[in-house]
Amino acid sequence: MSLACGVDVGGTKILAGVVDDEGTIVEEARVESPATDVDAITTAVAGLVDDLAKRHDFAHVGVGAAGYIDKARSTVLFAPNIAWRDVDLRAHLEDRTGKAVVIENDANAAAWGEFTYGAGADIDDFLLITVGTGVGGGLVLDGALYRGAFGIGAEIGHMRVVPGGILCGCGNLGCFEMYASGNALVRMAREAAEAGRADDLLKRAGGSVESINGPLVTAAAREGDSVAIALLGELGRWLGEGIASLTAVLDPATVAIGGGVSEADELLLEPAREGFLSQLTGRGHRPELVIRKATLGDRAGLIGAADLARR
Amino acid sequence: MSLACGVDVGGTKILAGVVDDEGTIVEEARVESPATDVDAITTAVAGLVDDLAKRHDFAHVGVGAAGYIDKARSTVLFAPNIAWRDVDLRAHLEDRTGKAVVIENDANAAAWGEFTYGAGADIDDFLLITVGTGVGGGLVLDGALYRGAFGIGAEIGHMRVVPGGILCGCGNLGCFEMYASGNALVRMAREAAEAGRADDLLKRAGGSVESINGPLVTAAAREGDSVAIALLGELGRWLGEGIASLTAVLDPATVAIGGGVSEADELLLEPAREGFLSQLTGRGHRPELVIRKATLGDRAGLIGAADLARR
Amino acid sequence: MSLACGVDVGGTKILAGVVDDEGTIVEEARVESPATDVDAITTAVAGLVDDLAKRHDFAHVGVGAAGYIDKARSTVLFAPNIAWRDVDLRAHLEDRTGKAVVIENDANAAAWGEFTYGAGADIDDFLLITVGTGVGGGLVLDGALYRGAFGIGAEIGHMRVVPGGILCGCGNLGCFEMYASGNALVRMAREAAEAGRADDLLKRAGGSVESINGPLVTAAAREGDSVAIALLGELGRWLGEGIASLTAVLDPATVAIGGGVSEADELLLEPAREGFLSQLTGRGHRPELVIRKATLGDRAGLIGAADLARR
Amino acid sequence: MSLACGVDVGGTKILAGVVDDEGTIVEEARVESPATDVDAITTAVAGLVDDLAKRHDFAHVGVGAAGYIDKARSTVLFAPNIAWRDVDLRAHLEDRTGKAVVIENDANAAAWGEFTYGAGADIDDFLLITVGTGVGGGLVLDGALYRGAFGIGAEIGHMRVVPGGILCGCGNLGCFEMYASGNALVRMAREAAEAGRADDLLKRAGGSVESINGPLVTAAAREGDSVAIALLGELGRWLGEGIASLTAVLDPATVAIGGGVSEADELLLEPAREGFLSQLTGRGHRPELVIRKATLGDRAGLIGAADLARR
Repeated sequence: MSLACGVDVGGTKILAGVVDDEGTIVEEARVESPATDVDAITTAVAGLVDDLAKRHDFAHVGVGAAGYIDKARSTVLFAPNIAWRDVDLRAHLEDRTGKAVVIENDANAAAWGEFTYGAGADIDDFLLITVGTGVGGGLVLDGALYRGAFGIGAEIGHMRVVPGGILCGCGNLGCFEMYASGNALVRMAREAAEAGRADDLLKRAGGSVESINGPLVTAAAREGDSVAIALLGELGRWLGEGIASLTAVLDPATVAIGGGVSEADELLLEPAREGFLSQLTGRGHRPELVIRKATLGDRAGLIGAADLARR
Repeated sequence: MSLACGVDVGGTKILAGVVDDEGTIVEEARVESPATDVDAITTAVAGLVDDLAKRHDFAHVGVGAAGYIDKARSTVLFAPNIAWRDVDLRAHLEDRTGKAVVIENDANAAAWGEFTYGAGADIDDFLLITVGTGVGGGLVLDGALYRGAFGIGAEIGHMRVVPGGILCGCGNLGCFEMYASGNALVRMAREAAEAGRADDLLKRAGGSVESINGPLVTAAAREGDSVAIALLGELGRWLGEGIASLTAVLDPATVAIGGGVSEADELLLEPAREGFLSQLTGRGHRPELVIRKATLGDRAGLIGAADLARR
Repeated sequence: MSLACGVDVGGTKILAGVVDDEGTIVEEARVESPATDVDAITTAVAGLVDDLAKRHDFAHVGVGAAGYIDKARSTVLFAPNIAWRDVDLRAHLEDRTGKAVVIENDANAAAWGEFTYGAGADIDDFLLITVGTGVGGGLVLDGALYRGAFGIGAEIGHMRVVPGGILCGCGNLGCFEMYASGNALVRMAREAAEAGRADDLLKRAGGSVESINGPLVTAAAREGDSVAIALLGELGRWLGEGIASLTAVLDPATVAIGGGVSEADELLLEPAREGFLSQLTGRGHRPELVIRKATLGDRAGLIGAADLARR
Repeated sequence: MSLACGVDVGGTKILAGVVDDEGTIVEEARVESPATDVDAITTAVAGLVDDLAKRHDFAHVGVGAAGYIDKARSTVLFAPNIAWRDVDLRAHLEDRTGKAVVIENDANAAAWGEFTYGAGADIDDFLLITVGTGVGGGLVLDGALYRGAFGIGAEIGHMRVVPGGILCGCGNLGCFEMYASGNALVRMAREAAEAGRADDLLKRAGGSVESINGPLVTAAAREGDSVAIALLGELGRWLGEGIASLTAVLDPATVAIGGGVSEADELLLEPAREGFLSQLTGRGHRPELVIRKATLGDRAGLIGAADLARR
């Protein structure tokens, strides 16, 4: 049995695990992410790896990191939420741990995890869309992870979907993630509450508009709140319409939806399928892809990173 | 020297040629396309191939066809402008010609031609955008032609860029080709003429709004007509903004612009680069791709098809 | 009792009636509209007036005409669907009939009819929106009919609601009537049918997409067809969102919805109210206007024209 | 000679003046606005009025206030930047000053001032658009100030121009003032600077993106900076396209542009006229309105308020 170690470094937490060749996590650990201190992140990751190495025999460590990674899978060029700027994370970690390390974009790693052991396991062309705070993506094309010419592909959240649209944190107007992310869901829900159109949501939030968040909306929708259902429906339609555009370009066989908002299950997926079909070019003349929920949850990144490291 | 035969079957003409392994066409021939008669097309293609085979020794024929092609590169599933519906064109042509045949989407074949012998020859991740009547595309990713899960990838003209936008021939609203194609250029130019804002263009067209076409606008722009320059500028900006969205997804190293409208050269490319930079997410933190003109003209498809056939 | 004659000249029919000072039609008549022949229209209108004058005593004739009318209420400057171009219709009709004539825009006349005897009878600031083939409007502000500086006000169907949107017959992109008219409803319904998402509608239309029309959609919605209900819902939301923009500018007390599509009643009005509230600026800090159905049907224009003539 | 007192109460300053019946200010005074303290505002206004009354003989005081004013011209229902909520400002000021007071919306008062003594003095249907931090408006229709059914008309900055557009402070997406205001100009300029496309602007701002403001952009444009000229051009086109929508509804004879950004003169007005003509429905078949700069500057409000008070 071949083991590898996978690590997922996000803006709020670091998750590490030892993964076998069937994608099963045999042990995992997590710590908070010291996101503003580059050395502290390296130390934290190395500490998790060293500790796991005491009890498990592995030679390869794969790290999924939320940033732009160079084509050599070594240097983090830029990360929006972590202090990395042109940091050779691979060299630092190989020095500290003595293991062979590869760095991958976290969403790419998650896509590979889902492709290998999860929602994309039966096809060759696969798109993972993570709907969390933002919208991320990972692509497996012709059976291989696609990273782009400069290691920055699959940033689908920044495809423009509304000219002159909502101002995105990236500085552009109208990015996909302004309409199809968890943040978009919360923005719409708070707006509805402020306008007096979401009294039930407001009540669930203890009367505070600022306390309305994504899980609260999803919980309300599950219990039949019509406003929450409509909000998830609007989010899902934007998501599906974006998938139609991505399908015109990429023609994948399966699109899996992961990330926190995917916990809404069919309340999100069904309107996504409707939005997709309403905008798919050539429908009726082409095989139709499958839109389904991702299956590995927030461990997809570490599982995928581990598997990429040992290949 | 290895020769192969390439054929490009469009809605108005069929172009065939014998291509050597440096991408040079040693002989070519063309006939009008009998687009509404499936058997007549097969006969016409076979006739061109048989005739070329009398003077050249080749074993492989690659056919670029304007339609959806199945993953086996054999059957045309659907073609918007030709009468093919689930036609096994490969079987028909192999029967008639005795050669080994592969069928490719015409834009994919052109992308491969440009990648191998033209504008994309020095990199691994390449996007060809053909700006003609519509907007087509072809993708080479990690050095391989990307066809999609069902053979229908790279239909970038049908990415939605304006929700609720202009009605496209495909039945959807707001497709990219409604804003960045030669037809879009003509629509804008005629609209300007009808509104009395393009007197020079109207004069060039003999006073008839209906006579304004793309080459006329380009010619006027080359001679300094400010309205024509502005129209190409608007087209170029839409094009560049679309490339920014595609780059968020695909991260190519080079984007080449082909098709008839690319004859406007820098009058189109310069505003395209401006539009691209104004919308590129992560600019300043990523290597920037090159936007350049395609170099093989309307022979890119046959050259690419020939090369794909012999591999 | 004061009688006046009202005439409504449209692209397909001419409707005339004698109206008393309570807005009741005491006799009416109609003929087909010879829309392409200016003299024939004049003759037809004069014939209807002369015939009614044999049995009723009136001195004033008001004519509602589907076109731009000059400020003197005399000349039709331009009409999109009738052959009038700078025709002094008032002079022609006064010559023929010997009555005092005023010409009004038909939607303005209808707005005055509804304001005086119908849906706007209890307030001072009133907007009538007619949702038929296109979207028309009429404004009563501070209790007076508002015609605009040049007699061309209240053409609300040509307010732009989507930059780069659907091409309108007026030559612009994204006009309100491309999203909120009966034609928009039919376009959406046919598109759904072509895409295989409206089988029930297609069945009602005898299997012919081209036979799907507005009354068919409304009838299906009344009988519970979920696709038809959703289509009217989408139309209603666009309508309500447009009303929110108009309210930001005009702050009316009542908006009445007339025209053929208003026959869908609450299936249209309820989503219109939702769309309105979702987009109204300052909601919660301002009195809310009433959105209701117009009450005079297709006689609003003739009733209003008659009343305007006798004032 | 008839004198009246006009006061303009904004979020940052209070401006008062004595105005004769030719619109000339015979004496004026200003103080900072204690915007968060309702009583302090009343005291400040009363103080200015009392002081002016020592040297001038007037019976009427008109107050322009930046908020929703009730139809009786007495109570401020709501003000976005001042602490008024249902405050009967008229009663308070009449108590304090012993004068006859009327309260008007400040933009309405300014429109009346321009209509009576400034840019709209020769016509009957007039729209003033103030392009400052936001976009405000005032309407004179058929020669009378139009206030709307509830006193809240002419809030043209909140007409929606981009569905799903930029989030406005009012809670809606895509409001006109997000695209055509001074704030929009600054947002575009800073974005260009951050993206490295406005080095000259950045240099003028001492290298600090945050220091780029509207007057700086206008000054740069006057001195020929091509980026600044292009930014004012884009702002002007949005402005003109919005005026085209407003013209479809209102058909005014003159639109005057006031507010701080109007100091850019033809650098703003010329692209506004182009944007207007490109989007005007029925162009060629209708008289064309005049778009010109407002002439009374920031005193339009007090002059208009004074004149409204004495009528």
